[in-house]
Amino acid sequence: MRLGLGMRLKTPVIVLNEKAYVESAGKKGLELAKICEEVAVEHGVSIAICPQQLELAKIASLVKIPCFAQHVDAVEPGSQTGFVTLESIKEAGAVGSLVNHSEHRLKIADIDFIVTKAASLDLLTIVCTNNIAVSKAVAELKPYAVAVEPPELIGTGRAVSKVDPAIVANTVKEVKRVDEECVVLCGAGVTNGEDVRAAIELGADGVLLASGVVKAKDPKAALVDLVSGLG
Amino acid sequence: MRLGLGMRLKTPVIVLNEKAYVESAGKKGLELAKICEEVAVEHGVSIAICPQQLELAKIASLVKIPCFAQHVDAVEPGSQTGFVTLESIKEAGAVGSLVNHSEHRLKIADIDFIVTKAASLDLLTIVCTNNIAVSKAVAELKPYAVAVEPPELIGTGRAVSKVDPAIVANTVKEVKRVDEECVVLCGAGVTNGEDVRAAIELGADGVLLASGVVKAKDPKAALVDLVSGLG
Amino acid sequence: MRLGLGMRLKTPVIVLNEKAYVESAGKKGLELAKICEEVAVEHGVSIAICPQQLELAKIASLVKIPCFAQHVDAVEPGSQTGFVTLESIKEAGAVGSLVNHSEHRLKIADIDFIVTKAASLDLLTIVCTNNIAVSKAVAELKPYAVAVEPPELIGTGRAVSKVDPAIVANTVKEVKRVDEECVVLCGAGVTNGEDVRAAIELGADGVLLASGVVKAKDPKAALVDLVSGLG
Amino acid sequence: MRLGLGMRLKTPVIVLNEKAYVESAGKKGLELAKICEEVAVEHGVSIAICPQQLELAKIASLVKIPCFAQHVDAVEPGSQTGFVTLESIKEAGAVGSLVNHSEHRLKIADIDFIVTKAASLDLLTIVCTNNIAVSKAVAELKPYAVAVEPPELIGTGRAVSKVDPAIVANTVKEVKRVDEECVVLCGAGVTNGEDVRAAIELGADGVLLASGVVKAKDPKAALVDLVSGLG
Repeated sequence: MRLGLGMRLKTPVIVLNEKAYVESAGKKGLELAKICEEVAVEHGVSIAICPQQLELAKIASLVKIPCFAQHVDAVEPGSQTGFVTLESIKEAGAVGSLVNHSEHRLKIADIDFIVTKAASLDLLTIVCTNNIAVSKAVAELKPYAVAVEPPELIGTGRAVSKVDPAIVANTVKEVKRVDEECVVLCGAGVTNGEDVRAAIELGADGVLLASGVVKAKDPKAALVDLVSGLG
Repeated sequence: MRLGLGMRLKTPVIVLNEKAYVESAGKKGLELAKICEEVAVEHGVSIAICPQQLELAKIASLVKIPCFAQHVDAVEPGSQTGFVTLESIKEAGAVGSLVNHSEHRLKIADIDFIVTKAASLDLLTIVCTNNIAVSKAVAELKPYAVAVEPPELIGTGRAVSKVDPAIVANTVKEVKRVDEECVVLCGAGVTNGEDVRAAIELGADGVLLASGVVKAKDPKAALVDLVSGLG
Repeated sequence: MRLGLGMRLKTPVIVLNEKAYVESAGKKGLELAKICEEVAVEHGVSIAICPQQLELAKIASLVKIPCFAQHVDAVEPGSQTGFVTLESIKEAGAVGSLVNHSEHRLKIADIDFIVTKAASLDLLTIVCTNNIAVSKAVAELKPYAVAVEPPELIGTGRAVSKVDPAIVANTVKEVKRVDEECVVLCGAGVTNGEDVRAAIELGADGVLLASGVVKAKDPKAALVDLVSGLG
Repeated sequence: MRLGLGMRLKTPVIVLNEKAYVESAGKKGLELAKICEEVAVEHGVSIAICPQQLELAKIASLVKIPCFAQHVDAVEPGSQTGFVTLESIKEAGAVGSLVNHSEHRLKIADIDFIVTKAASLDLLTIVCTNNIAVSKAVAELKPYAVAVEPPELIGTGRAVSKVDPAIVANTVKEVKRVDEECVVLCGAGVTNGEDVRAAIELGADGVLLASGVVKAKDPKAALVDLVSGLG
């Protein structure tokens, strides 16, 4: 699905990063995307998905929820082998990209390049950060969203919104102070509806998560539980 | 298309790297793949294609010629964001990957990891090199193919097989001395049938090229001209 | 020379980056440092120097002006081969480091790590930036100094303070708005006293330069000319 | 100390990598170098040392044993900030560099660049490798030495020459088959004279080690024990 000019995600939103898990490769990745679509429709909530890179164009053509690339490179189209341009994300039918995920950090000048160029192409950037200071710094670059994720909690099942509520609340406060339009997500360890509710109550516009759904025995049940925290 | 266990490309072969050109993004990338498929069938020749990364699963499901990723990362499946695993290449329906392209160089331990693991997954690796010494070194790692491309000729239209025949002939000789099973391609500046014929006469098993077709006014005509040099 | 606890450079300041030029290697690098020291003393001005990495401990022990590393890695002391820690900069007798030079860009989380840890070790960080937005972002991390250098002017002899005064003036304004304690330098193309004077008049606390002195026929004369613009 | 034209290290040799440990920073790094020098003289054995990068020029001017950089970048002298050139290693009075340490891996084309250029400057390259296949590959590039170090044993105190003798013996055999002039070192977990003796008996020309001496309570005693295994 492609959002129209100037459109934004409906918030609160759950953004599911499929990562490079075995459980999200090939057909399984499409199944996950279909589950997200079903739950979004059935529950009337906003869910976006980040398929594995090689599957992005395929999955974006088969589901109606917003799709994001997991990563984009700070390069112009041209003689570049194996790099992902913002233009190719648009052509693939996606609405934007995660940027600077803790597993795929970028140079600051490259984040600035990506955020600026994405805006000119009407693509959404969700820039991941590791703490409050970096969140503020990134907000100065005017991305669509900042997603704060303390690296030490990623994949632990111990939700940032429960274990470290101050980082969520203060990131929201500081980022909005720099740019009140900026969407703020939080992530790391988010597993269930309570974690989501806690995040929303702390002022976040949504959550970014991965293993809590991708590696769940029953991903749909896990997702239904998560959306219960949205409102 | 997926090759069966232990299968190899039919040689001589033309491998088309679509790179990240505007002319190969989205639908245009699929059109290029379809042209390659048509020419392969009509002329009974062996052509493989490397779509843009985000389009790989989609294009691999829509054409019958072998598809390669342009790049693969030396990572295991798991908590990796925006990286491309060998497993995801297989799930996408591709037959292998370019490795260490001059525009996307890799560490030697990572090339070793990729080549070894790809073999265990029945995936083909085409490892790019910049000179004879590096070609010999790579051959010791036992990839499916070595593709020698002097960086200074890439994208120039001055074909390596015409301008620097010694590098082609000596790469063939030295690589086959290390591993006689290893396929040897050459690339950089290859534009027409004469360039291909010269490469084959120097002992190469095929060519790797990009702009000569992708940026041609009439890509099909360019490709038909190229295959005229195959035999 | 090592500055005491909580000390800062005297401003306005000229910071000379020796880079990896032939003209600054080995003995020549020490000669350049000695010239900087002489001019600083003779003219009563503030000059700091960034020797080549391998020479830092040696030169820092032989001159009395402040020495900076050209680069520091975001690593803790330990089992790290060939990386430069903040601790080793302190042990070498230097007062801090350039960070994120346009020729050696860093990830944003790493800049944050370095800036934060340097402050705790009483080391000064001069973080290089490429435009106003990135300068503001970096200022949020609270480095000792921001040095804005438009990459397209580096090494051209066309001074940023003359060719693009707005970037200097606005970087000063925006950085001081975020953190009024933050020192602001500018660089790229700075060659003579007029360029320095223009920078100071635009509100900069000094300049960062390299080729204008290192590659000058008479480095001392070039430096004397530069300091004439300081006040 | 600088070796003369075409000179090589006397073998068997112990190469001590000081890494970025607290115990090898600043004055302590010089003390370690002095201990190596003393033991080399007192025992008539061949010991080389790799000081921390910032200390290289200083230490190389103060000891008579051969000094290596821990890392060198594949760049030409010039407008490069914070990178270490081969030329600067020579100017610093060192005899060569470690290359591609497991903690600082390089791209294969860059290893080729460094090895080739170092030879032309009469500098010695010790290229680290992680297994037999990569050792053979590197040997094709004609470095001065290959140092095989299984990453999983580094810093464990479990010596490669005792725990995995086959990797040492086979690396020696395969590397010498490719290039009989190539010196072969082994490393990882080497702690005492028995480990060294085992390495020599397996055909290695010496050992590369770090923590076994740097982090020893009595580095000199540790080194004396190590040299007891040399012959």
